[in-house]
Amino acid sequence: MSQRLLVIGGDAGGMAAASVARRRSPDLEIVALEQGRYTSYSACGIPYVLGGDVFSLDQLVARTPQQFRDRFRIDVRTGHRAMAIDLDKRSVEVHNLAQDRTYKLGFDLLHIATGAKPRRPPIPGIDGSQVYGVQTLEDAAPLLEEAKSGRCRNVVVVGGGYIGLELAEAFIKREAMVTVIERGAEVMGRLDPDMGALVSAGMRKHGITVHTAEAVNAIEPGTVTTTQRTVPADIVVLGLGVEPNSALAAEAGIATGVQGAIAVDRRQRTSVDGVWAAGDCCQSRFIVTGEPVYVALGTVANKQGRIAGINIAGGYATFPGVVGTAITKLCALEVGRTGVTEKEAKRAGFEYVVAKIESTTRAGYYPGAGTITVKLLVERVSGRVLGGQVIGPEGTAKRIDVLATAITAGMTADDVVYLDLSYAPPFSPVWDPVQEAARRASGLLEARG
Amino acid sequence: MSQRLLVIGGDAGGMAAASVARRRSPDLEIVALEQGRYTSYSACGIPYVLGGDVFSLDQLVARTPQQFRDRFRIDVRTGHRAMAIDLDKRSVEVHNLAQDRTYKLGFDLLHIATGAKPRRPPIPGIDGSQVYGVQTLEDAAPLLEEAKSGRCRNVVVVGGGYIGLELAEAFIKREAMVTVIERGAEVMGRLDPDMGALVSAGMRKHGITVHTAEAVNAIEPGTVTTTQRTVPADIVVLGLGVEPNSALAAEAGIATGVQGAIAVDRRQRTSVDGVWAAGDCCQSRFIVTGEPVYVALGTVANKQGRIAGINIAGGYATFPGVVGTAITKLCALEVGRTGVTEKEAKRAGFEYVVAKIESTTRAGYYPGAGTITVKLLVERVSGRVLGGQVIGPEGTAKRIDVLATAITAGMTADDVVYLDLSYAPPFSPVWDPVQEAARRASGLLEARG
Repeated sequence: MSQRLLVIGGDAGGMAAASVARRRSPDLEIVALEQGRYTSYSACGIPYVLGGDVFSLDQLVARTPQQFRDRFRIDVRTGHRAMAIDLDKRSVEVHNLAQDRTYKLGFDLLHIATGAKPRRPPIPGIDGSQVYGVQTLEDAAPLLEEAKSGRCRNVVVVGGGYIGLELAEAFIKREAMVTVIERGAEVMGRLDPDMGALVSAGMRKHGITVHTAEAVNAIEPGTVTTTQRTVPADIVVLGLGVEPNSALAAEAGIATGVQGAIAVDRRQRTSVDGVWAAGDCCQSRFIVTGEPVYVALGTVANKQGRIAGINIAGGYATFPGVVGTAITKLCALEVGRTGVTEKEAKRAGFEYVVAKIESTTRAGYYPGAGTITVKLLVERVSGRVLGGQVIGPEGTAKRIDVLATAITAGMTADDVVYLDLSYAPPFSPVWDPVQEAARRASGLLEARG
Repeated sequence: MSQRLLVIGGDAGGMAAASVARRRSPDLEIVALEQGRYTSYSACGIPYVLGGDVFSLDQLVARTPQQFRDRFRIDVRTGHRAMAIDLDKRSVEVHNLAQDRTYKLGFDLLHIATGAKPRRPPIPGIDGSQVYGVQTLEDAAPLLEEAKSGRCRNVVVVGGGYIGLELAEAFIKREAMVTVIERGAEVMGRLDPDMGALVSAGMRKHGITVHTAEAVNAIEPGTVTTTQRTVPADIVVLGLGVEPNSALAAEAGIATGVQGAIAVDRRQRTSVDGVWAAGDCCQSRFIVTGEPVYVALGTVANKQGRIAGINIAGGYATFPGVVGTAITKLCALEVGRTGVTEKEAKRAGFEYVVAKIESTTRAGYYPGAGTITVKLLVERVSGRVLGGQVIGPEGTAKRIDVLATAITAGMTADDVVYLDLSYAPPFSPVWDPVQEAARRASGLLEARG
């Protein structure tokens, strides 16, 4: 008799594993439970639908449940929520939401990909009906109605991270008055504050009000009150990041780690034999420090899902970890980061030099060349690149990939200086800006020793 | 008494060395000879001036002779040509072109950066006044006059490499009828023919006539005759690549290597003590094969110049070599390559799998997403990435840098699959196209072993 793989969660971390396992194990019976209506969609695309760049939420779906059934023979059950895992009996209690019926489903192999949920700190009023967290397509649908309606004149975004700022831009495009409230010294807490300040400036230039070093005290219908002021707010959008949906696993006795995320080994195995996890519900390893880390990103979910799928099917693959790469487009600015920030470097005990340079995205004389700022952190003595941040116009963001690759390879600043990177006037100065920064770092290292 | 460094050649390979040496050796006397009028200019920018994207040739000058004199205390002598090197007497015979006067100049240290010149095969009529090679700003000036004049209705470009095609596009922008004659099976001989064919198609779509597998038999005033036809030609532009200007060094007894380029060690030292070389006149090492190679590119010239400068000043630095990275923008297409092509891989004895995929430059649902083709060559057994080629619309070219970095680091296809590359819908699908190609290669390797 064939074995049954039960997958909990129908987005990237779950369905990547399911499809890879299917390809390698034609005989496996695969059942996938998804509490919502959608499978494999791009949550990262939601701000662009809200802002009107992308026409509909449906366009964000990469593969429908029916496609998984037809092409991969995966028994996808949408509207079915996993309520509890019984590891002794190897079964999951499932709630069929439409029929309000509960049943038990046995498994031989279990893959957990329950994702994440927006953080909702205990602020008075945070559970009001005008307060939106945006994580799933189901979350996004009512917010999209609001955005399209033109009813919401005043939008307050709580939290100035990537998602918060992307949502702020979306509502500016819908001609709302948008205010971002960020508790930290600067927006984009995953950048150094000096780089975050460039982002704040860019957002303000586009008419977005940005208040930093300001906490939200209370949310009431029509207003948000901070430590500094009361702001009108027809709707409030939460951009405070996410936390892992790991309660189901934890309650079953599966070990958790950083920020409560499910602990996994390099093969995406949990602490329990025959139980796997991938994506936003579980942790990763941070290559720069070697420490476990929680990163909720679609790219990581897809990779971890693939690793899990290969191993579930009896193959062998290990996930090397992440270097903390992230990019975004905010109004006219492109922003990227990888590796450690200054704060993270200090916490890990690294001594480093900082090279910060301005260069141009194209040859200076070529039409459309704009100023790009590159900041590099390079370890003393070893010369190893520890982190990088880039901010600038069109042509900036994807340059972070060279640094992500160099950091993964353990390259030094000098290694980066002499990389054979591409050059042509429409794309780059003769020294690519990341190499210009590496050159500066190399000089600082030599001076300092 | 201070030592004298004599630099022959005022472009990147020469002046990068001179400025780096100056910074590290305040007491060095530095004299730089340049036969032309300009120093440190971007020859790669010439097609964009010819096409009218960039206003004037002067904009291509990064640093003028006067700036080198003022900021770096370098005695730059433009219009002075080095005629002969006497290694025994440690002196160079110099011709002052304006005064038509010859003098001898002694040196303690000599740095040769004599650059390259366009290839002119022995085709009847190739030395006609209507035939232009484009290598220096001096070459470009009369061609720019022609382009602006509107006189040249019919332009024939001989050679379908990067420069040839960039020049073809420039003249299409000037509303000439442009024909490219390429002897090889496809344009862009540094790509595989299947990828070159995509470029030909793109050029034709923009109204450029492209004839491949066709050699030029004769050039006459008003026409070019090939093995297949006679084409009207008011002017003829040579895009046949360049060869090293190494005669001066060779005649002095300095060793040369690949294609007659000056042989250098990793510190850019020539075969003669105290004599250095950098840039288009000398050879490099090809990291993928370990063999010496001739690559004439501004990026390489700048890096080699920097290495030479550090060593000349008594420091220590070595040039790791190149991986053959190159990019260009041709009409609506961006094209990039790095590492080895199939032909080069076979010649070096590599067995490999080929992964060729189509993906999109942005998330498929994001406005402006276009089709990108990525081709990867991956070594059997080791899984090492040997080469990559990319063709597609805006957002394509600079992706080659990840592959250049990965190849330099000796990464395998699996290493590339799991790189933490950046993702956001305006910039990439969730699997970056280069990772999509690596994933395909990984599957092929597993199937083939």
